[in-house]
Amino acid sequence: MRGYAAVLEAFRRPLAWREFEVLPPTPGGVLVRIAVAGICGSDLHMWKGEDPRTPLPIILGHEAVGRVVALGGEKRDIMGQILREGDLIAWDRGVTCGACYYCTVRKKPYLCPHRRVYGINLSSAEPPHLLGGYAEYIHLLPGTNVLILPEGIDPAQLVAASCSGATAAHAVEASGIRLGDQVIVQGPGPLGLFALAFAVARGAATAIVVGTQRSAWKLEVARRFGATHLMMADVGTAESRRAEIHALTYGRGATQVIECSGAPAAIAEGIKWVAPGGVYALPGAAVPVGDVPIAIYEDVVRKNVRLQGTWVSDTSHFFQAVELVLSGRFPFDAMITHRFPLHEADRALQALEERNVLKAVLVPES
Amino acid sequence: MRGYAAVLEAFRRPLAWREFEVLPPTPGGVLVRIAVAGICGSDLHMWKGEDPRTPLPIILGHEAVGRVVALGGEKRDIMGQILREGDLIAWDRGVTCGACYYCTVRKKPYLCPHRRVYGINLSSAEPPHLLGGYAEYIHLLPGTNVLILPEGIDPAQLVAASCSGATAAHAVEASGIRLGDQVIVQGPGPLGLFALAFAVARGAATAIVVGTQRSAWKLEVARRFGATHLMMADVGTAESRRAEIHALTYGRGATQVIECSGAPAAIAEGIKWVAPGGVYALPGAAVPVGDVPIAIYEDVVRKNVRLQGTWVSDTSHFFQAVELVLSGRFPFDAMITHRFPLHEADRALQALEERNVLKAVLVPES
Amino acid sequence: MRGYAAVLEAFRRPLAWREFEVLPPTPGGVLVRIAVAGICGSDLHMWKGEDPRTPLPIILGHEAVGRVVALGGEKRDIMGQILREGDLIAWDRGVTCGACYYCTVRKKPYLCPHRRVYGINLSSAEPPHLLGGYAEYIHLLPGTNVLILPEGIDPAQLVAASCSGATAAHAVEASGIRLGDQVIVQGPGPLGLFALAFAVARGAATAIVVGTQRSAWKLEVARRFGATHLMMADVGTAESRRAEIHALTYGRGATQVIECSGAPAAIAEGIKWVAPGGVYALPGAAVPVGDVPIAIYEDVVRKNVRLQGTWVSDTSHFFQAVELVLSGRFPFDAMITHRFPLHEADRALQALEERNVLKAVLVPES
Amino acid sequence: MRGYAAVLEAFRRPLAWREFEVLPPTPGGVLVRIAVAGICGSDLHMWKGEDPRTPLPIILGHEAVGRVVALGGEKRDIMGQILREGDLIAWDRGVTCGACYYCTVRKKPYLCPHRRVYGINLSSAEPPHLLGGYAEYIHLLPGTNVLILPEGIDPAQLVAASCSGATAAHAVEASGIRLGDQVIVQGPGPLGLFALAFAVARGAATAIVVGTQRSAWKLEVARRFGATHLMMADVGTAESRRAEIHALTYGRGATQVIECSGAPAAIAEGIKWVAPGGVYALPGAAVPVGDVPIAIYEDVVRKNVRLQGTWVSDTSHFFQAVELVLSGRFPFDAMITHRFPLHEADRALQALEERNVLKAVLVPES
Repeated sequence: MRGYAAVLEAFRRPLAWREFEVLPPTPGGVLVRIAVAGICGSDLHMWKGEDPRTPLPIILGHEAVGRVVALGGEKRDIMGQILREGDLIAWDRGVTCGACYYCTVRKKPYLCPHRRVYGINLSSAEPPHLLGGYAEYIHLLPGTNVLILPEGIDPAQLVAASCSGATAAHAVEASGIRLGDQVIVQGPGPLGLFALAFAVARGAATAIVVGTQRSAWKLEVARRFGATHLMMADVGTAESRRAEIHALTYGRGATQVIECSGAPAAIAEGIKWVAPGGVYALPGAAVPVGDVPIAIYEDVVRKNVRLQGTWVSDTSHFFQAVELVLSGRFPFDAMITHRFPLHEADRALQALEERNVLKAVLVPES
Repeated sequence: MRGYAAVLEAFRRPLAWREFEVLPPTPGGVLVRIAVAGICGSDLHMWKGEDPRTPLPIILGHEAVGRVVALGGEKRDIMGQILREGDLIAWDRGVTCGACYYCTVRKKPYLCPHRRVYGINLSSAEPPHLLGGYAEYIHLLPGTNVLILPEGIDPAQLVAASCSGATAAHAVEASGIRLGDQVIVQGPGPLGLFALAFAVARGAATAIVVGTQRSAWKLEVARRFGATHLMMADVGTAESRRAEIHALTYGRGATQVIECSGAPAAIAEGIKWVAPGGVYALPGAAVPVGDVPIAIYEDVVRKNVRLQGTWVSDTSHFFQAVELVLSGRFPFDAMITHRFPLHEADRALQALEERNVLKAVLVPES
Repeated sequence: MRGYAAVLEAFRRPLAWREFEVLPPTPGGVLVRIAVAGICGSDLHMWKGEDPRTPLPIILGHEAVGRVVALGGEKRDIMGQILREGDLIAWDRGVTCGACYYCTVRKKPYLCPHRRVYGINLSSAEPPHLLGGYAEYIHLLPGTNVLILPEGIDPAQLVAASCSGATAAHAVEASGIRLGDQVIVQGPGPLGLFALAFAVARGAATAIVVGTQRSAWKLEVARRFGATHLMMADVGTAESRRAEIHALTYGRGATQVIECSGAPAAIAEGIKWVAPGGVYALPGAAVPVGDVPIAIYEDVVRKNVRLQGTWVSDTSHFFQAVELVLSGRFPFDAMITHRFPLHEADRALQALEERNVLKAVLVPES
Repeated sequence: MRGYAAVLEAFRRPLAWREFEVLPPTPGGVLVRIAVAGICGSDLHMWKGEDPRTPLPIILGHEAVGRVVALGGEKRDIMGQILREGDLIAWDRGVTCGACYYCTVRKKPYLCPHRRVYGINLSSAEPPHLLGGYAEYIHLLPGTNVLILPEGIDPAQLVAASCSGATAAHAVEASGIRLGDQVIVQGPGPLGLFALAFAVARGAATAIVVGTQRSAWKLEVARRFGATHLMMADVGTAESRRAEIHALTYGRGATQVIECSGAPAAIAEGIKWVAPGGVYALPGAAVPVGDVPIAIYEDVVRKNVRLQGTWVSDTSHFFQAVELVLSGRFPFDAMITHRFPLHEADRALQALEERNVLKAVLVPES
């Protein structure tokens, strides 16, 4: 069997359309026919060579959903169900060692120094080659944690669960949102929408989403996800915005601010929106943003504020993100704004670069 | 190379002294020369056929410490240090799947339904055969979590860390002992002494250990571990014992009671010693004890008490137990009351049966 | 000013309809005109003399909502808003000392040994007399924690928040329900419906409510609150019910079972429905139920199960319950099945005794 | 009865030695004869007028221990023991409202906006006047949480427990130090020594204390408290210091860094010493330190690091600090380097200004 993939062979150059021999599944692994793959903001950074983890050549794409083609031995999903050919599945994009300090003693496998990630740090130069989402097939390595999905759902809705969704779950869990809280989400992209949905699902009484005038249409999607208030980061002054937030939060600020934009200016301003005893969670900064000046005494110490760096996710977060989508409570279909055929992956990256996209997905032709 | 082991081939019969071909380490595994192995109360249950998990034939012994003989590939310990031949090591006695709901979503690998345990549910009938502690060599399977030990310590002190110590760590962690708490430990055996040591290490202000007249000498060891008060479960009446405990605990009872005896009568009485809002942790019941009548309203609901079943442990608990021993703060050498040569394993089991032992260990002749 | 109240002067006798001089508010207190008061199952126990806390004479009723008539000094609600005459308010039914071990060190004020509760342990014999809900007016003592309610909501919906709602919040919080969990609620009364609503709000993927054939109509209300499955405790056998639950929970049992019926038989059966690592929470037993036999090894230790006694609640739980009702996500109006004029309080108790009621409320005539 | 106090009437001027009429205790209050009062670094800031909370005139001193002279009604300590005349007592320096969002819903009374603090924001202009530690007597207001101390202990050892000790308890609790952790404490003053003692008490395997060459003698005290390694912040380069720390921490950095110096340069450097998944706790910055540039991506996000602002403390922390001192495990007597008679309070402040002091106390002449 042979299959095509779009391969990044040189930074900032069109992806190469390559045909691969599809090897049988590795022992303990799974061969999957990809149904839909997601385009993530990180892919653009990688395409530009801005992410030091990127080996060349590589098949990009760390978000995907597909159907089991063949199994390298009996395998169960994380709920204990045996995988069968034809099952629609999603999987944790990271494969961890299970033996290090972070995997075993701290139980934070997302910190595993040996973590391998499809489409991020696995090259197509080595067998089994097909280890990224921009392809017709993908090889899941032994140790990949899988979830069988119910039939009848649009698989595109679940694509983002394995990256933005899982990372948002991680940030929201670490920030401890409770029933009745006042939450702000900075940035209405996929990460922000997932963070918003988790906040609403946990019972946030107030959910303010902050965007820009240019992304006003994304804020409207946020409203459909349950945002109680929308705010423009580029309208008014820092003082007026802070006053607006205090008016919505009993004069205290937000119990949690989830920073999903990655912009240094957003970080510098958002920290000042946190209530005493609150949390400023930082899942959004995917690339270096330089030094951000922090008023340690006024904004952190005096207010007992916690800044929580949040990097990637683990299987427990992936599980939460899938459950959130499957609960049917949020219009995740509205998040998928663009669908491209697989061989137009370059166009998809281009659309993302132009910021007209909320979430674009690639669909291999059948 | 060949090595001897004491093998349980029929319940309640003397162990068979068998010679095995020592195979090379499995890929990803480690071949270890055992320095010391522990005799655990569970071994006695298994020898009698009371534990349904026991396959025959089996080399008993799930607690051991030894030196690396050969490696089936590069392997690091949980602190990230590369294992080398000759290293003195300890290991988590359980090997879990890393892929199930409990391993990944709940992060409670001790609940993994696929958990394999040396000397408990791994038969010597299958290669690599040497999978228990009552032997000169043991094969550590891939997925075994290992800790390199410092040189210069008596390895016998670390034997119990991998079973009683880890289980006590689990129970104490689940019961949330804090600085200034009032803690009771029921049963002054190895599990109870470890629970006591963890309670003292976490800053318990009061640490009451309860034993029996027959085990009075064990209570004296508990005193050396930091018990502030000793009590006899078979002196006085239930009322007088409760009054004694209330007098030591501001009239409230203990913030945590750790049940390490496994005796139904101890359980029925000990629940009544818990203060409102306190915890009754149950790591001690290793075999069925029948139904215990609980006054749900008076002893659980009305007092907001938590009963916490505790079964086995995972690598995070094993790590804590080893750290506790290595801290040097407690006289763990006093816990090792008997040392037998390996080929006298039957005598060691006999001594345990007669209850004259705190912790007995087996030492292979060099 | 004068006001009427229904007073319990002798157990199992009709309440006496008494007129009281309405004193001015105590310093730091609040005089409230009751809008609606709830009838709680505990009231029936107290009326029968089954609750040892009951002083005579007493105005029963610990659940109520009303409007501020007069203030004994400036007072803010728990969100920091200043109370004004005419404000519609709810309040935590318990007033705690703020100085004891449980109030300060453990931060569990529901365990405060000095906790005073309106309609439960405050007699009408002492000034300011009006300290229960079955009355036209109530005096809130200094130290009462208050929440100003928005206008435009039916106050009857909030009555149960201060007792069943807060206690359910406490139980659900202690049991740690997470997104994607499988939850069982035993007993579809007000406590059970609140527990269900909290479980759904926290993202339970499966929510099974267990009732009896006689209370089948209550199960239909539970369905409207989001129950995914309904089950009859008196249909089939213990084995068939357990099999049914395992079929709905990946063969494991429920991650949390919340026992809201208080029936010993329900407790004995429900414990067996908990998955390994799960929680059995017990907020439902309001009076002694005798000894319940527990298979400590099989159902608690071996499965790492936690039994969590839950008694009453504190202001943090009250806050959650009010927020839950105000979120508008659940049909709390459907919980209010009966409304009686205040002077027919006896009839209301009678209706509750006959078990035809979900939640009955008393409305003083204007 | 009359009593003397040293009163701050004008910033940066000698304290005035004033005689006051000692009023009877307020209802619910306690009149205390001060045995020892502590001089805290904050006092110096207040004396200079750098702390905006300071009302004039004021009796400084928020750390003290003394004996009950008279009671304004029955009062119990937080363990439930009834106070009697002559009892030696310590108390939480903050008095909170018990009714606000932070006191009731969040259970973080240290964030109470109505928190009153002896010697900090209570003026001597208003009755009962004696509300600070630099005096012969102090009036404890109703709502003050008290702990009866055992006889036979040098009360000076307990003075710092109510400020530095409680704040360190708060920071260590928030940073979650566990058995086997690698901890760094920046700054070997009273706050740092308490943080060190808490870290050691919780089982830190490695405890590195960082000071300066000038404070080398304080580092020697830290060694007596259990520091496993000492480091000079002004010896070598940032690179060499980081390398040294990595060599002591398995190449990862510290699981927790507790910043107790308040110096911006220390903060900027210390954040880089945290291991992935670790915590940087900030209890040390008592006055504004300006903006500190933080490499958000590299030092916070990418490493999943938490920055935890820590401001003051509550009664649960005070309790822990007293228990720590009373445990007798640490040489707190070595922390008290200077004792001045009360009327030489100016000299004590001067000594602190010159930084030759670890902890200075004031002793009223009998």
